[in-house]
Amino acid sequence: MTSVLVLGTGLIGTSLGLALIDAHDGSGRPYEVLMHDVEPEHLHVALSRGAGQRWDGHRPVDVVVAAGPPAVTASQLSEAQRLGLGATYTHVASVQSQVQQEVEGLNCDLSAIVGGHPLAGRETSGPAAARADLFLGRPWALCPSDASSREALSAVWSLAEATGAVPVRLTAQEHDRAVAVLSHLPQVVSSALAGLLVAEPTEGSPLRTELSGPGLADTTRLAASSPRLWTEILSANGAYVAPSVRTLAHDLLALADALEDLTGTPLPAVSTDDKGRAQAARKAVEAFLVRGNQGRSLVAVKRGVRDVGFAQVAVTVDDRPGRLAALLSAAGAASVNVEDVHVDHLPGRPTGVIELLVDVDAATGLERALIAGGWQVRSRTDPT
Amino acid sequence: MTSVLVLGTGLIGTSLGLALIDAHDGSGRPYEVLMHDVEPEHLHVALSRGAGQRWDGHRPVDVVVAAGPPAVTASQLSEAQRLGLGATYTHVASVQSQVQQEVEGLNCDLSAIVGGHPLAGRETSGPAAARADLFLGRPWALCPSDASSREALSAVWSLAEATGAVPVRLTAQEHDRAVAVLSHLPQVVSSALAGLLVAEPTEGSPLRTELSGPGLADTTRLAASSPRLWTEILSANGAYVAPSVRTLAHDLLALADALEDLTGTPLPAVSTDDKGRAQAARKAVEAFLVRGNQGRSLVAVKRGVRDVGFAQVAVTVDDRPGRLAALLSAAGAASVNVEDVHVDHLPGRPTGVIELLVDVDAATGLERALIAGGWQVRSRTDPT
Repeated sequence: MTSVLVLGTGLIGTSLGLALIDAHDGSGRPYEVLMHDVEPEHLHVALSRGAGQRWDGHRPVDVVVAAGPPAVTASQLSEAQRLGLGATYTHVASVQSQVQQEVEGLNCDLSAIVGGHPLAGRETSGPAAARADLFLGRPWALCPSDASSREALSAVWSLAEATGAVPVRLTAQEHDRAVAVLSHLPQVVSSALAGLLVAEPTEGSPLRTELSGPGLADTTRLAASSPRLWTEILSANGAYVAPSVRTLAHDLLALADALEDLTGTPLPAVSTDDKGRAQAARKAVEAFLVRGNQGRSLVAVKRGVRDVGFAQVAVTVDDRPGRLAALLSAAGAASVNVEDVHVDHLPGRPTGVIELLVDVDAATGLERALIAGGWQVRSRTDPT
Repeated sequence: MTSVLVLGTGLIGTSLGLALIDAHDGSGRPYEVLMHDVEPEHLHVALSRGAGQRWDGHRPVDVVVAAGPPAVTASQLSEAQRLGLGATYTHVASVQSQVQQEVEGLNCDLSAIVGGHPLAGRETSGPAAARADLFLGRPWALCPSDASSREALSAVWSLAEATGAVPVRLTAQEHDRAVAVLSHLPQVVSSALAGLLVAEPTEGSPLRTELSGPGLADTTRLAASSPRLWTEILSANGAYVAPSVRTLAHDLLALADALEDLTGTPLPAVSTDDKGRAQAARKAVEAFLVRGNQGRSLVAVKRGVRDVGFAQVAVTVDDRPGRLAALLSAAGAASVNVEDVHVDHLPGRPTGVIELLVDVDAATGLERALIAGGWQVRSRTDPT
């Protein structure tokens, strides 16, 4: 048996218990999970859901997981070490550098500590929301310090793998910088964009949002997130988020300058200087958009596979129950795996457009099969 | 018969011809469509697709539609008026104010002109890509000037309605400002965010994009758009896009300031001043996120219906052909209409999570039906 003590029975701690109950470590030994929480009610819910056994307050274990709020993570680890509760210690804080600095300041035994962060968000909080499959297929960042021992890293790696997560080893700084750009910045950008929709009417008339389309819907989806939760996350990683936000803002200001240079030039340009400035501005705008193309090609859209190599097949359908299912059945009958689906409703009309993301080699065959089946396939959209 | 002359057989002009062929105007009279293009090959494709008859170069009509590139729109209208070709004139330029100023400068008869813009993008260009259903359910902005006659507006309104579009009347300035924020700014923000992913490694190591999730995928989808096309669009509407981009950039800089104020304050705060500044900064971050919530609630996710009143039901499924179809069939069998679908693949795992957007009143019933059918329903995500 590999024994694990989970300190904190929130969403992550309780899900970790549930995930480890039937799991084995790297050597094939089953896990034994002990749970503890200063909140008796949370602990009660976690135990009643079968996330582990109640800890007696003394028994030492193989691995201690500090799963409380990030603000208490370092003191949880320090106190547990002082009591000699574990051979290895880890935590699940969404920001790593701050915890690492704090445990250094508390004179902990750093060789036994390996920071961790399962990237499994978008859920409600608390033990009632916990799920055994919360970590399945998700990256689990592991951030050993220079002082961390191989044994400690190995023990935490096994634990992450046992939950079904994919361990990713990187430094605390790499982690915090990566989540700042990959997770926290998209939230910021989405909120900023949606926020502009409620700006004061600048010309005496409200914004005519009935002209909006699917682009706005996609880019503002994250803006519906919890302000309280995200204030905590953005604050905790402010050291990395703030510079990224600033870089993005300066990129936008440079684009605004270029657009003003273009707009301020009468057509045809009145002087060679004007013409040169307009040409430079046009190049700057295009370069900005090209860099966006390049960045997008780095984004995984499925199982680490990038957007390159996929094609969209778009079909116009009646907007009534069952049409989406019938379309996907038709794709299945043509032996084509649909990687992603976008439904684009048409305002004021009982029709919609469904876009299927499929392997680029399968797209033409799928279009033919759908047309043969009487589906109204739209012309292929330009992938670039 | 109401006769229409379409000048320009690109995607929009040819689709307009195809859409009007079997349509009737507001008084029930059928449309007769005449096509013209200075490019004989484009014209040939449009005519061979049945988008209308070849214009003889002389015959006057009821409505002239300038459907060439925006740069020539005003001169097309002016020349057509000089030849007395139409009773009413319109165009389809994606930016309205510039064309309106140009036709004023060319001493056109403004009473006969009503600017228009069908919001039906995301397609390839050229007559071969044209479709009769391109405008179906889409907003068609109509921008009469102060000088436009009621008869001219009525004729253009009928034409837009006959294509299946939803006419939306607004001023040229309202239009240009609205599309700047609702369409052009999402493109800019998506490109800027994706562009940061290809930034130079600031700390000697590349960004670890394997930690990314569905939030990044959604917010950078538009970044795959054509740089050439979007350089034209952003330039043409620079007068409205540039200030919006600048406002957004300043909102982001203010957020970065607040995050730095928060991060720069040691915990616990060493002085009352520090504490007050940190509290103000935290409030600013939260207010920024709350404004995003408010803006998101204004975004139509379906047929003008906003995100409020919908709930997400999430199901864990095997990632193999047919599972999505089976799930949607199960929803159909439960008489629940699925408004939208998100597929969230789990990296490295043969499973995925499918999120169904349904009416909030139907969500609990759907969850029960799916659980009864053996589906692995995940706990409800927090909508706010």
